[in-house]
Amino acid sequence: MTSTKPEIGFVGLGAMGFGMATNLVKQGYSVKGYDVFPASVERFKVAGGIPATSLRDSAEGKQFYICMVASAPQVQDVLFNPETGILDVLPQGATFLLCSTVPSAYAQSVEKELKARGRDDILFIDSPVSGGAGRAADGTLSIMAGGSDAALEKGKFLLQEMSDAKKLYLVPGGIGAGSNMKMVHQVLAAIHIAGVSESMGLAARLGLDARVVADAIIKSDAWTWMHENRIQRMLEEDWNPGASAMTIILKDVGIITSTARLHKFPTPLASSAEQLYLTSLVHGYGPKDDSSLVRMYTPESIASVKCTLSPEETARRLQMVIKCMQYTNIVAAAEAVAFARYLNVDMKQFYDLVINAAGGSKMFNTLGVTMGEGIPTGNSSQGTLSIDGIIKELSAIVQEARDLFTPLHLATEALTQYLVAQRRGWGSEAATSIIRVWES
Amino acid sequence: MTSTKPEIGFVGLGAMGFGMATNLVKQGYSVKGYDVFPASVERFKVAGGIPATSLRDSAEGKQFYICMVASAPQVQDVLFNPETGILDVLPQGATFLLCSTVPSAYAQSVEKELKARGRDDILFIDSPVSGGAGRAADGTLSIMAGGSDAALEKGKFLLQEMSDAKKLYLVPGGIGAGSNMKMVHQVLAAIHIAGVSESMGLAARLGLDARVVADAIIKSDAWTWMHENRIQRMLEEDWNPGASAMTIILKDVGIITSTARLHKFPTPLASSAEQLYLTSLVHGYGPKDDSSLVRMYTPESIASVKCTLSPEETARRLQMVIKCMQYTNIVAAAEAVAFARYLNVDMKQFYDLVINAAGGSKMFNTLGVTMGEGIPTGNSSQGTLSIDGIIKELSAIVQEARDLFTPLHLATEALTQYLVAQRRGWGSEAATSIIRVWES
Repeated sequence: MTSTKPEIGFVGLGAMGFGMATNLVKQGYSVKGYDVFPASVERFKVAGGIPATSLRDSAEGKQFYICMVASAPQVQDVLFNPETGILDVLPQGATFLLCSTVPSAYAQSVEKELKARGRDDILFIDSPVSGGAGRAADGTLSIMAGGSDAALEKGKFLLQEMSDAKKLYLVPGGIGAGSNMKMVHQVLAAIHIAGVSESMGLAARLGLDARVVADAIIKSDAWTWMHENRIQRMLEEDWNPGASAMTIILKDVGIITSTARLHKFPTPLASSAEQLYLTSLVHGYGPKDDSSLVRMYTPESIASVKCTLSPEETARRLQMVIKCMQYTNIVAAAEAVAFARYLNVDMKQFYDLVINAAGGSKMFNTLGVTMGEGIPTGNSSQGTLSIDGIIKELSAIVQEARDLFTPLHLATEALTQYLVAQRRGWGSEAATSIIRVWES
Repeated sequence: MTSTKPEIGFVGLGAMGFGMATNLVKQGYSVKGYDVFPASVERFKVAGGIPATSLRDSAEGKQFYICMVASAPQVQDVLFNPETGILDVLPQGATFLLCSTVPSAYAQSVEKELKARGRDDILFIDSPVSGGAGRAADGTLSIMAGGSDAALEKGKFLLQEMSDAKKLYLVPGGIGAGSNMKMVHQVLAAIHIAGVSESMGLAARLGLDARVVADAIIKSDAWTWMHENRIQRMLEEDWNPGASAMTIILKDVGIITSTARLHKFPTPLASSAEQLYLTSLVHGYGPKDDSSLVRMYTPESIASVKCTLSPEETARRLQMVIKCMQYTNIVAAAEAVAFARYLNVDMKQFYDLVINAAGGSKMFNTLGVTMGEGIPTGNSSQGTLSIDGIIKELSAIVQEARDLFTPLHLATEALTQYLVAQRRGWGSEAATSIIRVWES
């Protein structure tokens, strides 16, 4: 049986790329894959892919090419390296899907460079993905795709093969728009990944049973998609290499903070998370799973803690952990929504994306829309926590953690934002008003 | 020759206390000293002091008693422990000098508890000190003393023996005022100690010769008293135990942030420094000298870096390090001045104290008075850097450090404050306007 489906070229057979490429193989495509690690190419061959003997070999004659390497400098090399780059071998009118996570400014520079080199015949799509290795392999990723109408029309079937039907976002705004959408989503991802470590580190230092806390968070207002995704690896210390290296989220958060600096936009929580990731690198955690960040909070295995507290005290401390992350996640949601608003991202798509992807949190999912509808005003209604009320609770939590010598990088930074809002006279307003801190 | 000077009781013969007590011995006082570590008492005996056999033995019959233990809980134990505390053996009308650094709220609670226990005959002075072990031994400390007029009158001669004539501050406001004055001073100390590590860590990651940078900083706008004081120990990695343990500055910064939370006052830079100190504890640096904090920035010896850059590139990178700390120190000065203003600290005394003590910096010493004169307004004059100008330079520095995977906890937090000021419309104003961020 000969496939009538077009041949695909593919570069970047890492955790995500391998899943994406093999999924296409399963869908009946002939996929020629390349990676700088020969072992990855061999593994791809075993999974039914066609091994490329070189980067150029993976692109020669391919009308469709997918790039899933790790960073902008690698993309630059894949396309434009004068010795090995694929630009000279990509056929006329080929469709090039850039699925790597890169700064929007970089995606735009690729568009310019293709034109400058006389290759604007290439239909270029800026289409970063989200969802983890599992969904990559299932072809149910979230994809945020921007590009010309012609490019999107030609490449859409491939984007559809790789994504869940409800999670393919054709983002208006051309090249860069997809990357921006991914980036504002990653504001949440980057903070929440650190949040898993912060909450579980705090729980361990409070003497709580890690599995009990982990389960309770999932059912609570402190839920994040990242918590649910990372917690098993954290509990088992399955870090070498784990599923997603510290350097990956560090790269993503670097895209956020460098783009924010370009726009002179403050990102206090994402910046705190970035500093924490950088500090973990100094201690050798770069290649380990990002759930190993918990070691920046507690030197010992969190799973080894045996709770010896009374049921009442256990319940009180568990609430401390939950509130600490819940209130932090409200600020995370505000930071992401404020940045998205500032960048004129399509807010409806943004909410839909986050709620269905890795950046989701109970707080974002319930408060994000209100935050994005503009600057909220008005006092907190009955039963809703005000900024004053949060400050009271969060201050006590931060102090109790401090008395145990437990770092709380994110919660401390979140508390600073609440205090700034209070000093500006918004203390009696609802928690969603914290977004006003970012308004000029 | 019999001394006509009164007998002194003393507790807390650590690095500072030992110097203070032996200085009094040299001045001809009979000092009976106690410490929980017998070796410290023995050392004091060798230095001419009278060893106390117990805590109470150090206080019995002493009209003057000096307490220089490490923390508020230890003070509580010294005074009020029902088995061992000195309260019952201190004679009627004794003068009690509390020289330990404690929260002002704690000093006030001691005053109340003395009264509640019927011992308000004790003349209590809240008199924390600053200046390091060397100045303690020389009797040239800075001392910030508050208390009743009667207490200050009776104890003044002792405060004078321990302090430099120009560095004894009789702080108006009664008990708590001395501790508050010390605390706002420590805002600068706590940030600057972390700043020494941040600047030298950055320099190492930039490939610069540590000694060259260390010397250049001392002559530059990035000068801090702490840099000059800590740099030798940092270069020699003289950390075990070094001169001032990480846990000491961690205690001091904890007093700042807990008092700030009590007042709902944001202290973003001091809080960032505190989180960094806490993280160093997780990695086992608690008992080491605080200059070992540089290990949170770079895993290798900074003194081992051999600069191989061109003279031009070396000069450019050196300027990066200097500007990075200079701009951070401006925000540190603003945070300290804003908190002092908020607490109604006597500003003239505060400036004089800082400039002559361990919290001094070139930026505080030159810009602090302007910041404290109220909310400055008006555009930056010619030749003076505006907030916009600082953001431009500091953003580039933070990005270049980021590209080298170097953490910059303080500079990142400082940049956030500048960006917040810019978004509030103060970008064209002089750098001193950064203090407006703290105004309500």
